[in-house]
Amino acid sequence: MSTLIRTGISLDRELLLRFDRIIRKKGYKNRSEAIRDLVRDYAVGEDVEEDRTVVGALTLVYDHHRPKLSEQLLEVQHHAHAMVLAATHVHLDHHNCLEVVLMKGRSSQVRHIADQILTLRGVKHGKLVLTTEGKGLR
Amino acid sequence: MSTLIRTGISLDRELLLRFDRIIRKKGYKNRSEAIRDLVRDYAVGEDVEEDRTVVGALTLVYDHHRPKLSEQLLEVQHHAHAMVLAATHVHLDHHNCLEVVLMKGRSSQVRHIADQILTLRGVKHGKLVLTTEGKGLR
Amino acid sequence: MSTLIRTGISLDRELLLRFDRIIRKKGYKNRSEAIRDLVRDYAVGEDVEEDRTVVGALTLVYDHHRPKLSEQLLEVQHHAHAMVLAATHVHLDHHNCLEVVLMKGRSSQVRHIADQILTLRGVKHGKLVLTTEGKGLR
Amino acid sequence: MSTLIRTGISLDRELLLRFDRIIRKKGYKNRSEAIRDLVRDYAVGEDVEEDRTVVGALTLVYDHHRPKLSEQLLEVQHHAHAMVLAATHVHLDHHNCLEVVLMKGRSSQVRHIADQILTLRGVKHGKLVLTTEGKGLR
Repeated sequence: MSTLIRTGISLDRELLLRFDRIIRKKGYKNRSEAIRDLVRDYAVGEDVEEDRTVVGALTLVYDHHRPKLSEQLLEVQHHAHAMVLAATHVHLDHHNCLEVVLMKGRSSQVRHIADQILTLRGVKHGKLVLTTEGKGLR
Repeated sequence: MSTLIRTGISLDRELLLRFDRIIRKKGYKNRSEAIRDLVRDYAVGEDVEEDRTVVGALTLVYDHHRPKLSEQLLEVQHHAHAMVLAATHVHLDHHNCLEVVLMKGRSSQVRHIADQILTLRGVKHGKLVLTTEGKGLR
Repeated sequence: MSTLIRTGISLDRELLLRFDRIIRKKGYKNRSEAIRDLVRDYAVGEDVEEDRTVVGALTLVYDHHRPKLSEQLLEVQHHAHAMVLAATHVHLDHHNCLEVVLMKGRSSQVRHIADQILTLRGVKHGKLVLTTEGKGLR
Repeated sequence: MSTLIRTGISLDRELLLRFDRIIRKKGYKNRSEAIRDLVRDYAVGEDVEEDRTVVGALTLVYDHHRPKLSEQLLEVQHHAHAMVLAATHVHLDHHNCLEVVLMKGRSSQVRHIADQILTLRGVKHGKLVLTTEGKGLR
Protein backbone atom coordinates (compact mmCIF):
# COMPACT_ATOMS: atom_id res chain seq x y z
CA MET A 1 0.00 0.00 0.00
CA SER A 2 1.28 3.36 -1.00
CA THR A 3 0.82 6.39 1.27
CA LEU A 4 1.37 9.79 -0.26
CA ILE A 5 2.93 12.29 2.11
CA ARG A 6 2.91 16.01 1.48
CA THR A 7 6.10 17.82 2.36
CA GLY A 8 7.00 21.46 1.98
CA ILE A 9 10.21 22.64 0.40
CA SER A 10 11.45 26.19 -0.01
CA LEU A 11 13.07 27.37 -3.21
CA ASP A 12 14.08 30.71 -4.53
CA ARG A 13 11.32 32.24 -6.65
CA GLU A 14 13.42 32.55 -9.82
CA LEU A 15 14.69 28.98 -9.55
CA LEU A 16 11.14 27.72 -9.15
CA LEU A 17 9.89 29.66 -12.19
CA ARG A 18 12.74 28.27 -14.21
CA PHE A 19 12.05 24.74 -13.03
CA ASP A 20 8.40 25.18 -14.00
CA ARG A 21 9.43 26.28 -17.51
CA ILE A 22 11.73 23.31 -18.04
CA ILE A 23 9.29 20.68 -16.79
CA ARG A 24 6.48 22.13 -18.90
CA LYS A 25 8.73 21.84 -21.92
CA LYS A 26 9.57 18.23 -21.09
CA GLY A 27 5.88 17.44 -20.68
CA TYR A 28 5.35 17.08 -16.93
CA LYS A 29 1.85 17.73 -15.60
CA ASN A 30 2.98 19.15 -12.24
CA ARG A 31 5.95 19.82 -9.96
CA SER A 32 5.44 16.86 -7.66
CA GLU A 33 5.76 14.42 -10.53
CA ALA A 34 8.95 16.07 -11.79
CA ILE A 35 10.55 16.20 -8.35
CA ARG A 36 9.57 12.59 -7.68
CA ASP A 37 11.46 11.66 -10.85
CA LEU A 38 14.58 13.49 -9.68
CA VAL A 39 14.33 11.82 -6.27
CA ARG A 40 13.77 8.37 -7.74
CA ASP A 41 16.72 8.75 -10.07
CA TYR A 42 18.83 9.74 -7.08
CA ALA A 43 17.65 6.62 -5.25
CA VAL A 44 18.41 4.34 -8.22
CA GLY A 45 21.91 5.84 -8.36
CA GLU A 46 22.41 4.78 -4.78
CA ASP A 47 21.14 1.23 -5.45
CA VAL A 48 23.76 0.89 -8.17
CA GLU A 49 26.51 2.35 -5.98
CA GLU A 50 25.67 0.04 -3.09
CA ASP A 51 25.59 -3.04 -5.33
CA ARG A 52 21.94 -3.81 -4.59
CA THR A 53 19.58 -5.74 -6.84
CA VAL A 54 18.89 -3.77 -9.99
CA VAL A 55 17.48 -4.40 -13.43
CA GLY A 56 19.85 -4.05 -16.36
CA ALA A 57 19.04 -3.57 -20.02
CA LEU A 58 21.96 -4.23 -22.33
CA THR A 59 21.39 -2.84 -25.82
CA LEU A 60 23.69 -4.13 -28.53
CA VAL A 61 24.06 -3.93 -32.27
CA TYR A 62 25.82 -6.71 -34.15
CA ASP A 63 26.26 -8.26 -37.53
CA HIS A 64 24.37 -11.55 -37.59
CA HIS A 65 26.48 -12.80 -40.47
CA ARG A 66 29.48 -12.96 -38.19
CA PRO A 67 30.13 -16.70 -37.78
CA LYS A 68 29.33 -18.15 -34.37
CA LEU A 69 28.34 -14.85 -32.77
CA SER A 70 24.67 -15.75 -32.31
CA GLU A 71 25.69 -19.04 -30.68
CA GLN A 72 28.06 -17.25 -28.33
CA LEU A 73 25.42 -14.68 -27.40
CA LEU A 74 22.99 -17.46 -26.59
CA GLU A 75 25.61 -19.36 -24.63
CA VAL A 76 26.50 -16.43 -22.37
CA GLN A 77 22.81 -15.80 -21.75
CA HIS A 78 22.03 -19.44 -20.99
CA HIS A 79 25.00 -19.65 -18.69
CA ALA A 80 23.60 -16.67 -16.81
CA HIS A 81 20.00 -17.81 -17.16
CA ALA A 82 19.28 -17.13 -13.49
CA MET A 83 19.84 -13.45 -14.17
CA VAL A 84 18.58 -13.08 -17.74
CA LEU A 85 14.87 -12.24 -17.86
CA ALA A 86 14.33 -11.90 -21.57
CA ALA A 87 15.91 -10.83 -24.82
CA THR A 88 14.40 -8.99 -27.76
CA HIS A 89 15.77 -9.07 -31.23
CA VAL A 90 15.06 -6.62 -34.04
CA HIS A 91 16.33 -6.92 -37.62
CA LEU A 92 17.65 -3.46 -38.49
CA ASP A 93 18.63 -4.36 -42.03
CA HIS A 94 20.08 -7.26 -43.99
CA HIS A 95 23.19 -7.29 -41.81
CA ASN A 96 22.51 -5.51 -38.55
CA CYS A 97 20.67 -6.85 -35.53
CA LEU A 98 19.57 -4.92 -32.51
CA GLU A 99 19.28 -6.98 -29.36
CA VAL A 100 18.26 -6.00 -25.85
CA VAL A 101 19.10 -8.38 -23.04
CA LEU A 102 17.14 -7.78 -19.84
CA MET A 103 18.75 -8.91 -16.61
CA LYS A 104 18.16 -8.75 -12.88
CA GLY A 105 20.85 -9.09 -10.22
CA ARG A 106 23.36 -7.17 -8.17
CA SER A 107 24.76 -4.28 -10.17
CA SER A 108 28.27 -5.79 -10.20
CA GLN A 109 26.95 -9.13 -11.54
CA VAL A 110 24.86 -7.47 -14.22
CA ARG A 111 27.92 -5.46 -15.29
CA HIS A 112 29.98 -8.63 -15.50
CA ILE A 113 27.52 -10.36 -17.85
CA ALA A 114 27.37 -7.17 -19.92
CA ASP A 115 31.19 -7.18 -20.22
CA GLN A 116 31.15 -10.81 -21.38
CA ILE A 117 28.69 -9.96 -24.13
CA LEU A 118 30.19 -6.63 -25.18
CA THR A 119 33.64 -8.13 -25.65
CA LEU A 120 32.41 -10.77 -28.12
CA ARG A 121 33.89 -10.34 -31.56
CA GLY A 122 31.28 -8.93 -33.94
CA VAL A 123 29.39 -6.81 -31.46
CA LYS A 124 29.60 -3.34 -32.98
CA HIS A 125 28.33 -1.26 -30.14
CA GLY A 126 26.48 -1.67 -26.90
CA LYS A 127 25.49 0.09 -23.74
CA LEU A 128 24.18 -1.03 -20.40
CA VAL A 129 21.46 0.82 -18.53
CA LEU A 130 20.84 0.07 -14.86
CA THR A 131 17.45 0.78 -13.38
CA THR A 132 15.29 -0.29 -10.46
CA GLU A 133 13.47 -3.59 -9.97
CA GLY A 134 10.59 -1.35 -8.91
CA LYS A 135 9.96 -2.82 -5.46
CA GLY A 136 10.10 -0.12 -2.80
CA LEU A 137 10.26 2.67 -5.35
CA ARG A 138 6.97 4.45 -5.76
CA MET B 1 31.99 -5.43 -48.35
CA SER B 2 34.25 -4.98 -45.41
CA THR B 3 37.98 -4.44 -45.94
CA LEU B 4 40.22 -4.78 -42.92
CA ILE B 5 43.11 -2.35 -42.92
CA ARG B 6 46.12 -2.75 -40.69
CA THR B 7 47.44 0.47 -39.18
CA GLY B 8 50.32 0.99 -36.81
CA ILE B 9 50.03 3.06 -33.67
CA SER B 10 52.72 3.89 -31.18
CA LEU B 11 52.07 3.78 -27.47
CA ASP B 12 54.25 4.00 -24.44
CA ARG B 13 55.28 0.53 -23.23
CA GLU B 14 53.78 0.91 -19.76
CA LEU B 15 50.49 2.23 -21.10
CA LEU B 16 50.28 -0.69 -23.50
CA LEU B 17 50.94 -3.26 -20.74
CA ARG B 18 48.28 -1.65 -18.64
CA PHE B 19 45.80 -1.64 -21.51
CA ASP B 20 46.53 -5.34 -22.07
CA ARG B 21 45.80 -6.08 -18.41
CA ILE B 22 42.47 -4.24 -18.44
CA ILE B 23 41.18 -5.74 -21.67
CA ARG B 24 42.15 -9.25 -20.53
CA LYS B 25 40.13 -8.67 -17.37
CA LYS B 26 37.13 -7.45 -19.37
CA GLY B 27 37.36 -10.51 -21.62
CA TYR B 28 38.74 -9.21 -24.91
CA LYS B 29 40.61 -11.69 -27.10
CA ASN B 30 43.05 -9.15 -28.56
CA ARG B 31 44.01 -5.48 -28.77
CA SER B 32 42.47 -4.79 -32.15
CA GLU B 33 39.04 -5.80 -30.96
CA ALA B 34 39.30 -3.61 -27.84
CA ILE B 35 40.56 -0.59 -29.76
CA ARG B 36 37.87 -1.06 -32.40
CA ASP B 37 35.30 -0.85 -29.59
CA LEU B 38 36.79 2.41 -28.32
CA VAL B 39 36.82 3.82 -31.84
CA ARG B 40 33.25 2.72 -32.57
CA ASP B 41 31.99 4.22 -29.33
CA TYR B 42 33.72 7.47 -30.30
CA ALA B 43 31.97 7.36 -33.68
CA VAL B 44 28.55 6.71 -32.12
CA GLY B 45 29.09 9.68 -29.82
CA GLU B 46 29.61 11.83 -32.88
CA ASP B 47 26.44 10.49 -34.57
CA VAL B 48 24.45 11.53 -31.51
CA GLU B 49 26.12 14.95 -31.35
CA GLU B 50 25.48 15.63 -35.04
CA ASP B 51 21.82 14.58 -34.78
CA ARG B 52 22.21 11.73 -37.27
CA THR B 53 20.02 8.63 -37.43
CA VAL B 54 20.55 6.49 -34.37
CA VAL B 55 18.83 3.64 -32.60
CA GLY B 56 17.41 4.35 -29.16
CA ALA B 57 16.43 1.90 -26.45
CA LEU B 58 14.28 3.40 -23.73
CA THR B 59 14.14 1.23 -20.62
CA LEU B 60 11.38 2.02 -18.16
CA VAL B 61 9.88 0.57 -15.02
CA TYR B 62 6.28 1.30 -14.13
CA ASP B 63 3.38 0.11 -12.06
CA HIS B 64 0.85 -1.49 -14.37
CA HIS B 65 -1.92 -0.97 -11.83
CA ARG B 66 -1.68 2.76 -12.40
CA PRO B 67 -4.95 3.63 -14.18
CA LYS B 68 -4.62 4.57 -17.85
CA LEU B 69 -0.81 4.39 -17.93
CA SER B 70 -0.68 1.38 -20.28
CA GLU B 71 -3.08 3.13 -22.67
CA GLN B 72 -1.00 6.28 -22.62
CA LEU B 73 2.19 4.33 -23.25
CA LEU B 74 0.58 2.63 -26.22
CA GLU B 75 -0.79 5.90 -27.52
CA VAL B 76 2.58 7.68 -27.52
CA GLN B 77 4.14 4.70 -29.27
CA HIS B 78 1.42 4.47 -31.89
CA HIS B 79 1.62 8.17 -32.50
CA ALA B 80 5.34 7.75 -33.15
CA HIS B 81 4.92 4.45 -34.95
CA ALA B 82 7.20 5.52 -37.79
CA MET B 83 10.05 5.59 -35.30
CA VAL B 84 9.13 2.81 -32.89
CA LEU B 85 10.56 -0.53 -33.98
CA ALA B 86 9.39 -2.78 -31.18
CA ALA B 87 8.63 -2.94 -27.49
CA THR B 88 9.29 -5.69 -24.99
CA HIS B 89 7.46 -6.12 -21.77
CA VAL B 90 8.58 -8.13 -18.74
CA HIS B 91 6.53 -8.71 -15.59
CA LEU B 92 8.95 -8.02 -12.74
CA ASP B 93 6.45 -8.81 -9.99
CA HIS B 94 2.75 -8.39 -9.23
CA HIS B 95 3.03 -4.61 -9.61
CA ASN B 96 6.12 -3.72 -11.57
CA CYS B 97 6.61 -3.89 -15.32
CA LEU B 98 9.82 -3.46 -17.21
CA GLU B 99 9.40 -2.20 -20.74
CA VAL B 100 11.96 -1.50 -23.41
CA VAL B 101 10.88 0.65 -26.36
CA LEU B 102 13.18 0.41 -29.38
CA MET B 103 13.25 3.37 -31.73
CA LYS B 104 15.08 4.61 -34.78
CA GLY B 105 15.38 8.25 -35.86
CA ARG B 106 17.43 11.38 -35.47
CA SER B 107 18.84 11.61 -31.97
CA SER B 108 16.77 14.73 -31.17
CA GLN B 109 13.55 13.01 -32.28
CA VAL B 110 14.29 9.86 -30.31
CA ARG B 111 14.99 12.00 -27.23
CA HIS B 112 11.69 13.81 -27.68
CA ILE B 113 9.66 10.57 -27.71
CA ALA B 114 11.61 9.39 -24.68
CA ASP B 115 10.71 12.60 -22.82
CA GLN B 116 7.04 12.12 -23.65
CA ILE B 117 7.11 8.63 -22.18
CA LEU B 118 9.29 9.38 -19.16
CA THR B 119 7.05 12.23 -18.02
CA LEU B 120 3.93 10.05 -17.89
CA ARG B 121 2.56 9.72 -14.38
CA GLY B 122 3.30 6.28 -12.99
CA VAL B 123 6.61 5.71 -14.74
CA LYS B 124 8.98 5.10 -11.85
CA HIS B 125 12.29 5.27 -13.61
CA GLY B 126 13.68 5.18 -17.08
CA LYS B 127 16.77 5.74 -19.12
CA LEU B 128 17.47 6.19 -22.78
CA VAL B 129 20.46 4.63 -24.52
CA LEU B 130 21.49 5.82 -27.97
CA THR B 131 23.43 3.51 -30.23
CA THR B 132 24.15 3.00 -33.90
CA GLU B 133 21.83 1.73 -36.60
CA GLY B 134 24.82 -0.37 -37.60
CA LYS B 135 25.12 0.70 -41.22
CA GLY B 136 28.61 2.00 -41.95
CA LEU B 137 29.94 0.89 -38.60
CA ARG B 138 32.00 -2.25 -38.81
CA MET C 1 16.97 40.10 -4.15
CA SER C 2 16.11 36.52 -3.43
CA THR C 3 12.60 35.54 -2.37
CA LEU C 4 12.16 32.08 -0.90
CA ILE C 5 8.89 30.45 -1.85
CA ARG C 6 7.49 27.46 -0.02
CA THR C 7 5.89 24.84 -2.24
CA GLY C 8 4.32 21.54 -1.29
CA ILE C 9 5.15 18.30 -3.04
CA SER C 10 3.68 14.90 -2.45
CA LEU C 11 5.85 11.80 -2.38
CA ASP C 12 5.26 8.24 -1.41
CA ARG C 13 6.17 7.66 2.24
CA GLU C 14 8.75 4.95 1.52
CA LEU C 15 10.45 7.02 -1.17
CA LEU C 16 10.65 9.98 1.19
CA LEU C 17 12.19 7.88 3.98
CA ARG C 18 14.72 6.54 1.55
CA PHE C 19 15.56 10.01 0.27
CA ASP C 20 16.04 11.16 3.87
CA ARG C 21 18.47 8.30 4.51
CA ILE C 22 20.55 9.07 1.42
CA ILE C 23 20.79 12.82 1.98
CA ARG C 24 21.74 12.29 5.64
CA LYS C 25 24.55 10.02 4.49
CA LYS C 26 25.73 12.61 1.95
CA GLY C 27 25.69 15.30 4.63
CA TYR C 28 22.67 17.47 3.81
CA LYS C 29 21.08 19.37 6.67
CA ASN C 30 17.53 19.20 5.33
CA ARG C 31 15.31 18.13 2.42
CA SER C 32 14.91 21.58 0.88
CA GLU C 33 18.64 21.96 0.40
CA ALA C 34 18.95 18.53 -1.22
CA ILE C 35 16.00 19.07 -3.54
CA ARG C 36 17.29 22.52 -4.47
CA ASP C 37 20.53 20.86 -5.54
CA LEU C 38 18.67 18.37 -7.74
CA VAL C 39 16.63 21.20 -9.27
CA ARG C 40 19.68 23.39 -9.86
CA ASP C 41 21.56 20.55 -11.50
CA TYR C 42 18.56 20.01 -13.76
CA ALA C 43 18.60 23.72 -14.66
CA VAL C 44 22.34 23.70 -15.41
CA GLY C 45 21.79 20.69 -17.67
CA GLU C 46 19.31 22.76 -19.63
CA ASP C 47 21.70 25.72 -19.91
CA VAL C 48 24.27 23.42 -21.46
CA GLU C 49 21.75 21.84 -23.81
CA GLU C 50 20.45 25.22 -24.98
CA ASP C 51 23.97 26.57 -25.58
CA ARG C 52 23.61 29.37 -23.04
CA THR C 53 26.48 31.06 -21.20
CA VAL C 54 28.11 28.63 -18.81
CA VAL C 55 31.31 28.34 -16.86
CA GLY C 56 33.71 25.59 -17.84
CA ALA C 57 36.54 24.09 -15.84
CA LEU C 58 38.95 22.03 -17.91
CA THR C 59 41.18 19.83 -15.78
CA LEU C 60 44.24 18.39 -17.49
CA VAL C 61 47.34 16.46 -16.59
CA TYR C 62 50.45 16.75 -18.72
CA ASP C 63 54.16 16.22 -18.75
CA HIS C 64 55.84 19.61 -18.58
CA HIS C 65 59.04 18.16 -20.04
CA ARG C 66 57.25 17.68 -23.33
CA PRO C 67 58.87 20.23 -25.67
CA LYS C 68 56.71 23.19 -26.63
CA LEU C 69 53.59 21.97 -24.83
CA SER C 70 53.55 24.78 -22.24
CA GLU C 71 53.91 27.36 -25.02
CA GLN C 72 51.06 25.79 -26.97
CA LEU C 73 48.84 25.70 -23.90
CA LEU C 74 49.52 29.38 -23.29
CA GLU C 75 48.92 30.22 -26.91
CA VAL C 76 45.50 28.57 -27.07
CA GLN C 77 44.52 30.33 -23.86
CA HIS C 78 45.74 33.71 -25.02
CA HIS C 79 44.00 33.30 -28.31
CA ALA C 80 40.79 32.66 -26.38
CA HIS C 81 41.56 35.24 -23.72
CA ALA C 82 38.07 36.72 -23.93
CA MET C 83 36.75 33.43 -22.58
CA VAL C 84 39.54 32.27 -20.29
CA LEU C 85 39.09 33.56 -16.75
CA ALA C 86 42.06 32.01 -15.01
CA ALA C 87 44.32 29.01 -14.91
CA THR C 88 45.82 27.20 -11.95
CA HIS C 89 48.87 25.06 -12.11
CA VAL C 90 49.94 22.41 -9.59
CA HIS C 91 53.19 20.44 -9.73
CA LEU C 92 52.16 16.85 -9.09
CA ASP C 93 55.69 15.46 -9.24
CA HIS C 94 58.91 15.97 -11.15
CA HIS C 95 57.18 15.30 -14.45
CA ASN C 96 53.46 15.74 -14.07
CA CYS C 97 51.52 18.99 -14.00
CA LEU C 98 47.89 19.45 -13.14
CA GLU C 99 46.28 22.46 -14.72
CA VAL C 100 42.76 23.79 -14.48
CA VAL C 101 41.64 26.29 -17.09
CA LEU C 102 38.53 28.25 -16.12
CA MET C 103 36.42 29.62 -18.93
CA LYS C 104 33.14 31.41 -19.50
CA GLY C 105 31.14 31.39 -22.72
CA ARG C 106 28.46 29.55 -24.64
CA SER C 107 28.71 25.83 -23.96
CA SER C 108 29.64 25.07 -27.59
CA GLN C 109 32.47 27.64 -27.52
CA VAL C 110 33.82 26.36 -24.22
CA ARG C 111 33.78 22.83 -25.61
CA HIS C 112 35.68 23.96 -28.69
CA ILE C 113 38.51 25.52 -26.64
CA ALA C 114 38.61 22.38 -24.51
CA ASP C 115 39.00 20.23 -27.66
CA GLN C 116 41.86 22.41 -28.86
CA ILE C 117 43.69 21.91 -25.57
CA LEU C 118 42.90 18.25 -25.09
CA THR C 119 44.21 17.31 -28.52
CA LEU C 120 47.65 18.85 -27.88
CA ARG C 121 50.39 16.27 -27.92
CA GLY C 122 51.62 15.59 -24.40
CA VAL C 123 48.32 16.12 -22.60
CA LYS C 124 47.82 12.80 -20.82
CA HIS C 125 44.26 13.17 -19.67
CA GLY C 126 41.65 15.83 -19.26
CA LYS C 127 38.01 16.42 -18.59
CA LEU C 128 35.71 19.37 -18.98
CA VAL C 129 33.05 20.24 -16.43
CA LEU C 130 30.30 22.69 -17.32
CA THR C 131 28.55 24.59 -14.59
CA THR C 132 26.56 27.77 -14.09
CA GLU C 133 27.80 31.35 -14.14
CA GLY C 134 25.65 31.71 -11.05
CA LYS C 135 23.45 34.59 -12.17
CA GLY C 136 19.79 33.69 -11.89
CA LEU C 137 20.50 30.46 -10.07
CA ARG C 138 19.84 30.66 -6.38
CA MET D 1 62.17 6.65 -19.20
CA SER D 2 59.46 6.24 -21.74
CA THR D 3 59.72 3.63 -24.47
CA LEU D 4 57.40 3.98 -27.42
CA ILE D 5 56.24 0.68 -28.83
CA ARG D 6 54.65 0.34 -32.23
CA THR D 7 51.73 -2.06 -32.43
CA GLY D 8 49.52 -2.92 -35.36
CA ILE D 9 45.76 -2.92 -35.15
CA SER D 10 43.29 -3.87 -37.84
CA LEU D 11 40.16 -1.86 -38.45
CA ASP D 12 37.55 -1.85 -41.12
CA ARG D 13 38.40 0.66 -43.85
CA GLU D 14 35.19 2.69 -43.48
CA LEU D 15 35.53 2.88 -39.72
CA LEU D 16 39.09 4.08 -40.06
CA LEU D 17 38.12 6.81 -42.56
CA ARG D 18 35.40 7.95 -40.24
CA PHE D 19 37.75 7.99 -37.27
CA ASP D 20 40.19 10.08 -39.30
CA ARG D 21 37.44 12.58 -40.10
CA ILE D 22 36.38 12.97 -36.48
CA ILE D 23 39.87 13.36 -35.07
CA ARG D 24 40.79 15.90 -37.75
CA LYS D 25 37.72 17.89 -36.74
CA LYS D 26 38.67 17.72 -33.06
CA GLY D 27 42.19 18.85 -33.90
CA TYR D 28 44.37 15.75 -33.53
CA LYS D 29 47.59 15.66 -35.51
CA ASN D 30 47.57 11.89 -36.04
CA ARG D 31 45.86 8.61 -35.22
CA SER D 32 48.33 7.45 -32.59
CA GLU D 33 47.71 10.52 -30.47
CA ALA D 34 43.92 10.12 -30.69
CA ILE D 35 44.04 6.42 -29.87
CA ARG D 36 46.42 7.04 -26.98
CA ASP D 37 43.83 9.44 -25.56
CA LEU D 38 41.09 6.82 -25.81
CA VAL D 39 43.34 4.25 -24.16
CA ARG D 40 44.42 6.63 -21.38
CA ASP D 41 40.83 7.57 -20.65
CA TYR D 42 40.00 3.86 -20.42
CA ALA D 43 42.89 3.42 -17.97
CA VAL D 44 41.80 6.37 -15.82
CA GLY D 45 38.29 4.90 -15.68
CA GLU D 46 39.79 1.73 -14.26
CA ASP D 47 41.82 3.65 -11.64
CA VAL D 48 38.62 5.25 -10.42
CA GLU D 49 36.74 1.95 -10.40
CA GLU D 50 39.51 0.19 -8.47
CA ASP D 51 39.71 3.00 -5.89
CA ARG D 52 43.35 3.82 -6.69
CA THR D 53 45.03 7.18 -6.15
CA VAL D 54 43.57 9.78 -8.43
CA VAL D 55 43.48 13.54 -8.75
CA GLY D 56 40.15 15.25 -8.25
CA ALA D 57 39.08 18.70 -9.32
CA LEU D 58 35.91 19.91 -7.65
CA THR D 59 34.39 22.91 -9.41
CA LEU D 60 31.78 24.85 -7.46
CA VAL D 61 29.82 28.05 -7.78
CA TYR D 62 28.55 29.78 -4.66
CA ASP D 63 27.32 33.08 -3.33
CA HIS D 64 30.04 34.58 -1.17
CA HIS D 65 27.51 36.74 0.63
CA ARG D 66 26.06 33.65 2.23
CA PRO D 67 27.01 33.96 5.91
CA LYS D 68 29.65 31.52 7.14
CA LEU D 69 29.96 29.61 3.86
CA SER D 70 33.53 30.75 3.14
CA GLU D 71 34.57 29.71 6.63
CA GLN D 72 32.95 26.32 6.24
CA LEU D 73 34.61 25.80 2.86
CA LEU D 74 37.98 26.61 4.39
CA GLU D 75 37.32 24.38 7.36
CA VAL D 76 36.50 21.31 5.28
CA GLN D 77 39.59 21.91 3.18
CA HIS D 78 41.86 22.39 6.18
CA HIS D 79 40.46 19.32 7.82
CA ALA D 80 41.36 17.39 4.65
CA HIS D 81 44.61 19.27 4.11
CA ALA D 82 46.54 16.07 3.51
CA MET D 83 44.47 15.58 0.36
CA VAL D 84 43.84 19.13 -0.79
CA LEU D 85 46.57 20.36 -3.13
CA ALA D 86 45.32 23.83 -3.97
CA ALA D 87 42.23 25.94 -4.49
CA THR D 88 41.57 28.67 -7.01
CA HIS D 89 38.99 31.34 -6.61
CA VAL D 90 37.49 33.51 -9.34
CA HIS D 91 35.02 36.36 -8.80
CA LEU D 92 32.33 35.82 -11.41
CA ASP D 93 30.31 38.89 -10.44
CA HIS D 94 29.34 40.83 -7.36
CA HIS D 95 27.69 37.76 -5.83
CA ASN D 96 28.99 34.65 -7.49
CA CYS D 97 32.29 32.91 -6.86
CA LEU D 98 33.80 30.09 -8.82
CA GLU D 99 36.13 27.87 -6.86
CA VAL D 100 38.12 24.84 -7.91
CA VAL D 101 39.47 22.59 -5.19
CA LEU D 102 42.24 20.26 -6.33
CA MET D 103 42.71 17.05 -4.39
CA LYS D 104 44.72 13.86 -4.51
CA GLY D 105 43.74 10.59 -2.83
CA ARG D 106 41.84 7.37 -3.33
CA SER D 107 38.79 7.96 -5.48
CA SER D 108 36.41 7.11 -2.61
CA GLN D 109 38.14 9.60 -0.29
CA VAL D 110 38.13 12.36 -2.89
CA ARG D 111 34.42 11.74 -3.46
CA HIS D 112 33.75 11.96 0.26
CA ILE D 113 35.40 15.39 0.58
CA ALA D 114 33.50 16.53 -2.49
CA ASP D 115 30.21 15.43 -0.89
CA GLN D 116 31.03 17.38 2.27
CA ILE D 117 31.60 20.52 0.24
CA LEU D 118 28.72 20.12 -2.19
CA THR D 119 26.18 19.68 0.61
CA LEU D 120 27.11 23.00 2.27
CA ARG D 121 24.24 25.46 2.24
CA GLY D 122 24.88 28.20 -0.30
CA VAL D 123 26.77 26.11 -2.84
CA LYS D 124 24.71 26.55 -5.99
CA HIS D 125 26.24 23.93 -8.20
CA GLY D 126 29.28 21.78 -8.35
CA LYS D 127 30.83 18.85 -10.13
CA LEU D 128 33.74 16.59 -9.43
CA VAL D 129 36.13 15.42 -12.12
CA LEU D 130 38.48 12.51 -11.45
CA THR D 131 41.68 12.22 -13.43
CA THR D 132 45.10 10.63 -13.16
CA GLU D 133 47.99 11.65 -10.94
CA GLY D 134 50.04 11.17 -14.09
CA LYS D 135 52.56 8.67 -12.79
CA GLY D 136 52.62 5.57 -14.94
CA LEU D 137 50.39 7.10 -17.58
CA ARG D 138 52.25 8.22 -20.63
